[in-house]
Amino acid sequence: MKQFSIIGKRVARVDGKPMVLGKTKYVNDISLPGMLYGKILRSPCAHATILNIDTSKAETLPGVRAVITAKDIPIVRFGYEPGMEDETVLAVDKVRYVGEPVAAVAAVDEDTADEALELIDVTYKELPAVFDPEEAMKPGAPVIHDDFPDNVRHRVFREFGDVERGFRESDYIREDKFKTPMIMNATLATRCCMADFTPETRELTMYSDTQMPYSGKPKLANILGIPAEKIRFVRPIVAGSFGSRAETCHDVHAISAFLSMKTGKPVKIEHVRSEEFSVIRGRHALTLKFKTGVKKDGTIMAMQCEHITNCGAYGDFAISNTLQNSSIFDLILSPANLKYDAPVVYTNTVPGLTVRALTNNPLGFGLYSHMDMIARDLGIDPVDFYLKNVHHQGDVTSGGAKLDSCGISKCIQEVAKASRWKDKRGKLPPNRGIGLGLGAHTAGFCSGGELSTCQVNVDELGEVRVLSGRGEYGNASTNMICMIVAEELGLRLENVAINDIVDTNVIPYEASNYGSRGTIGQGRAAMAAAQDVRQQLFEVVASRFNAKVKDMEAKEGQIFVKGSPDKGMSLKDAVKAYNDSGKPLPLIGRGSYEPPSEDMDFNTGVGNVSVAWGFGAQVVEVEVDPETGGIKVLNVVTANDGGTVLNPLHLEGSSEGGIVMSLGMALFEGVQYDERGRIITTSFPTYGVPTALQTPEIKHIWVETYDPYGPYGAKGVTEVVSLPTTSAIANAIYDAVGVRIKELPITADKVLNALKGRQKA
Amino acid sequence: MKQFSIIGKRVARVDGKPMVLGKTKYVNDISLPGMLYGKILRSPCAHATILNIDTSKAETLPGVRAVITAKDIPIVRFGYEPGMEDETVLAVDKVRYVGEPVAAVAAVDEDTADEALELIDVTYKELPAVFDPEEAMKPGAPVIHDDFPDNVRHRVFREFGDVERGFRESDYIREDKFKTPMIMNATLATRCCMADFTPETRELTMYSDTQMPYSGKPKLANILGIPAEKIRFVRPIVAGSFGSRAETCHDVHAISAFLSMKTGKPVKIEHVRSEEFSVIRGRHALTLKFKTGVKKDGTIMAMQCEHITNCGAYGDFAISNTLQNSSIFDLILSPANLKYDAPVVYTNTVPGLTVRALTNNPLGFGLYSHMDMIARDLGIDPVDFYLKNVHHQGDVTSGGAKLDSCGISKCIQEVAKASRWKDKRGKLPPNRGIGLGLGAHTAGFCSGGELSTCQVNVDELGEVRVLSGRGEYGNASTNMICMIVAEELGLRLENVAINDIVDTNVIPYEASNYGSRGTIGQGRAAMAAAQDVRQQLFEVVASRFNAKVKDMEAKEGQIFVKGSPDKGMSLKDAVKAYNDSGKPLPLIGRGSYEPPSEDMDFNTGVGNVSVAWGFGAQVVEVEVDPETGGIKVLNVVTANDGGTVLNPLHLEGSSEGGIVMSLGMALFEGVQYDERGRIITTSFPTYGVPTALQTPEIKHIWVETYDPYGPYGAKGVTEVVSLPTTSAIANAIYDAVGVRIKELPITADKVLNALKGRQKA
Repeated sequence: MKQFSIIGKRVARVDGKPMVLGKTKYVNDISLPGMLYGKILRSPCAHATILNIDTSKAETLPGVRAVITAKDIPIVRFGYEPGMEDETVLAVDKVRYVGEPVAAVAAVDEDTADEALELIDVTYKELPAVFDPEEAMKPGAPVIHDDFPDNVRHRVFREFGDVERGFRESDYIREDKFKTPMIMNATLATRCCMADFTPETRELTMYSDTQMPYSGKPKLANILGIPAEKIRFVRPIVAGSFGSRAETCHDVHAISAFLSMKTGKPVKIEHVRSEEFSVIRGRHALTLKFKTGVKKDGTIMAMQCEHITNCGAYGDFAISNTLQNSSIFDLILSPANLKYDAPVVYTNTVPGLTVRALTNNPLGFGLYSHMDMIARDLGIDPVDFYLKNVHHQGDVTSGGAKLDSCGISKCIQEVAKASRWKDKRGKLPPNRGIGLGLGAHTAGFCSGGELSTCQVNVDELGEVRVLSGRGEYGNASTNMICMIVAEELGLRLENVAINDIVDTNVIPYEASNYGSRGTIGQGRAAMAAAQDVRQQLFEVVASRFNAKVKDMEAKEGQIFVKGSPDKGMSLKDAVKAYNDSGKPLPLIGRGSYEPPSEDMDFNTGVGNVSVAWGFGAQVVEVEVDPETGGIKVLNVVTANDGGTVLNPLHLEGSSEGGIVMSLGMALFEGVQYDERGRIITTSFPTYGVPTALQTPEIKHIWVETYDPYGPYGAKGVTEVVSLPTTSAIANAIYDAVGVRIKELPITADKVLNALKGRQKA
Repeated sequence: MKQFSIIGKRVARVDGKPMVLGKTKYVNDISLPGMLYGKILRSPCAHATILNIDTSKAETLPGVRAVITAKDIPIVRFGYEPGMEDETVLAVDKVRYVGEPVAAVAAVDEDTADEALELIDVTYKELPAVFDPEEAMKPGAPVIHDDFPDNVRHRVFREFGDVERGFRESDYIREDKFKTPMIMNATLATRCCMADFTPETRELTMYSDTQMPYSGKPKLANILGIPAEKIRFVRPIVAGSFGSRAETCHDVHAISAFLSMKTGKPVKIEHVRSEEFSVIRGRHALTLKFKTGVKKDGTIMAMQCEHITNCGAYGDFAISNTLQNSSIFDLILSPANLKYDAPVVYTNTVPGLTVRALTNNPLGFGLYSHMDMIARDLGIDPVDFYLKNVHHQGDVTSGGAKLDSCGISKCIQEVAKASRWKDKRGKLPPNRGIGLGLGAHTAGFCSGGELSTCQVNVDELGEVRVLSGRGEYGNASTNMICMIVAEELGLRLENVAINDIVDTNVIPYEASNYGSRGTIGQGRAAMAAAQDVRQQLFEVVASRFNAKVKDMEAKEGQIFVKGSPDKGMSLKDAVKAYNDSGKPLPLIGRGSYEPPSEDMDFNTGVGNVSVAWGFGAQVVEVEVDPETGGIKVLNVVTANDGGTVLNPLHLEGSSEGGIVMSLGMALFEGVQYDERGRIITTSFPTYGVPTALQTPEIKHIWVETYDPYGPYGAKGVTEVVSLPTTSAIANAIYDAVGVRIKELPITADKVLNALKGRQKA
């Protein structure tokens, strides 16, 4: 096996110091001379007809530079899936959720903009509203979009094998229903975009926090009615996204752009925190109904899932999200027969987009809670139950996922061992419990062609400077890329620099980070670009020493003939030699990677949408206070298969963050509405994000597989590491006090009520 | 001859609209969160010992974040020529000119910083000062630098042939003495730099208006004591420079950096206008003594020049400037014998750097005034006089200049013809006169290796995006580069985009713009980069049509087999085909150009320091008001040899700007001091920049030569176009009223006094 210099080492992030020192510049920090401040007037009604909008008072307020409503902009419907566009930037005639943008203003300062919003008179005629997807599907429910009288926007349906036969052949069948609320991203920064349009050239620069600066250009262009080529995204490091910034079409983006187009000035819109918690598009609420049939020995004969997605008032990403869950459903378990029936249902709530791993997290909460109960019902240790039913390397799942690497068995075995599962299970003191959760996710999403490119420059001082359009939202892609380039060029990490800002006019194309695709996509592109530079330097040094290029090596800052360190020179000297050689300048290495990709079938979700898949298992130990229902997560042992470990620090950081996010989701978090559909959880305390005080001790295990597509065999992990926690906590609580809460979050009062109910019973 | 699509056409600047619309961002527009404002305490004394600096009061002023004096920073001497370093960032023990930086503060706002400056107590012991270089060279004059007791910092001396013999063989000898003041750049923006240092990473970002973002890094690094690799320059478009920004070592740059290093915060220093007119380093004051011997027929037998440069208190660029004038001295005229004796003399005035064409302009004022007088004395028409004595294509001058293209004869002939010189000379109404001036300058400076590189990206949308580190200070390099890339790729100008900001971490190396080197250096690099991209696209299209790459052509947005427009596709489709071809991505073209270069001999100035030389002649018509001495420049006819004309609009713009600058220098401008060496011309009105009202009618003639090194045969023109005006005006005034003013500016009162003096006599 190749000996690495940097890969696999615990090296700190090159971009870490500026971040913790407060020197990192975020889009919120950017200001331009003459810029205006935009604010958005949002619907106070969950469902209403707009009878009239009077902007005259707002327009005459001193300091107001523009007021826009749907009348003032082209009405272009947009949505994630082509052909399924159902939304407009500003509401046309009707509002469908509380918070929907109705009008917007640009003014010389924020106070004036806020005051102007108050001066806009909108006359609404309220309509009956519906907030629960099961209610929405009932006959007679309010119709949200005329084209969808049953409020079912789409239905993903897939049957594999013969589920009814599977149930018939089962010894035991269990059904469970779960509900999970909408989860918000709760990023440190609030969303922000500053649009700067020059009417005379029709050029638009978007200073943005979007995850999709390149692929988002044509989408935004379509909405604005300007050529995509004229749009430039400037995207600094982003202070957290988790999927919430994976768009360029609405709210801060489109509205700031329209306001800038109207005023000819830069217009900045920055959400206040309450907007971040009420109109940011989070992870959809799900209603999940499982039915599983098993043999006595634990063999799963049939699995069935009714997966109801509350897509909110507009479709946005809900269908793709649901399609992905179709193949994720049996990514770990391999039943002979399977049915997945997943309506995507309109309600009068805020639309969803995604939070880290889509709705795979609530799906997993339900699925692995359900399976835990089945194992218990059968009297089989869940560890054994799972090991009997999981996929293995080389499998192709019924959803089309090709598992070229798959360490789920080993994850389960390792996590059980490290957590002393067999010792502890059933033997813990009263009110303490232990639970096992599983998760699997895309480790290199690639549906529809995801291209990464990378450029490695070597400057006149011999400095290696990487240019990459990667998304850095805290995911350490920056460091991963620099490590790979350093490894390939035989340099120390501090000798590799990388662009801090992604400017689409300057930095080459990058599909960017989502679906845990960064490691494979950007890693491979960076590796190729570094190798291209290396090759060019090798040629110069080899010719100097009458050696063959293939015999050259780059290590410890030197380029030399393998085995003859004296036949070589420092990389810096090699750069000088290159620069004097008459070979092409500037010295640039190019690299790209586009994984083999499949589209998901729009009706079934079948298709291998990830070049690699990641797996994980977690064991969680909890203590429940029987007096209060309060739950303390004592410790988590997590074992993940992310392929080759490129840097344990990256993985631990990602894993710890993921576990805490899911702990929050399990115990505290969730969007809550009042009776009129208004979100009431609009702040950190009311929404319930966990803090350091709730963070348990975490032990990490890395099950190293070798993925044939990944750089050095690595896969993406940022999503999968977060998944098993939710079900593991639920299962541990049951193990502790025998109470099964099927609706997230598992709050103390729910547990207490359940304990009281059981006492009564 | 090749038919061009764009080259040679009057196409407007791609960056013009944003400029005139106020959308262009300059460094002064950049602000960062948490930034501090720096201010510089300057010496009020022209020459003094610093006895004590007490910063204690300033340090305790609320809002002050740092106060620095020379004690607080490493004392590293700097200067333009290696081995000749004589200056420090903050004065050590002694000040040598009014305005020399003594201390600096960083505070939360500008007012606090100003207040803090007033609280710094500096105790000076004044020393005798000297302001005139001839005075400074006299025995007993105050000594400014102990190592140079005669105040002569350096002496450039060159003799070619035998001057004394030349004089002996002459029929007529004339001597004249001229004086020219320091000229300031008077740019629209004032100098500005914001330094942002992160102590923990020792990385420094300089948001700067420097002309030398790349080559300036090692120089600044040396002063600051950090590695050059850790310095990043971010340089937006600059609102005028003319040479004043051709440094990175002192004043706003080094001081903002030191303040940022001390505070760990971004520190912005922006000159106020009075600083711009008093400490910006302009064009050195000269004292010029000419002695020329001629035959009766006008043949120049010997030319001698004593060229005294007032270098001010520190050397800076004065020696290089004087060295260049050594070979510029006989760039047009070709005497058999020549002597150039040029002391560079310290005085207690502000050091100089350069304004457009160095001190070639005052040299030309003196030289071509002197020659005009000689022609008159001989009774020979200056046109005929010059035509007898000028260099021709293929000549190598005594200073080493290789004239691979040289159109000076034709410039003189054309300008005489177009101005109706023969008709007008001696036949104008009273008080009107006509004068001829000449000029020649580097048209592609290249001493010591000036490398240009360029990158042409083609993005995922098929957009061509040029990355160039060129300096855009109004010189139209941006447009020139885009035109060349468009020409080579067969595109329209609007389909070629270019980076607006030069970020040394991202954009490849560029020596940048000075010495009129942009056209050849950047033009050739851009051409090569475009051809590299074109080649890659040709390969794909050729293979599609089974054609040979060499038979392909790019024109009107199409790439096709020459002569078979149907065998081809649009460039956008070719990009798509390329992207799908499996060839290296991202699609990048690389180009570079480094002209053959020679160093100037440090003692003689001999050496071919420009790959090409530009030439020009102007005829100016003036009217002098005999009652007031007031001079009105009625019209200018200018003929220039800039090689092939790439875009007449560029040349006209440059030429008009150059003529107006020189008109200002001839008639109004010049730094004036009070008796204590304090500059009193610290504003636009007191300094005397001409306005549109003083701008004459200008007629342009372009004498097209073909320079073998330039892109399509073009040469740089930005400096040469400005040169002939000054002597032409002086000669026209003499022609009008018979008055010869030998000390610039030729103000109305000087003319009036001379007229009165003549009346008396």
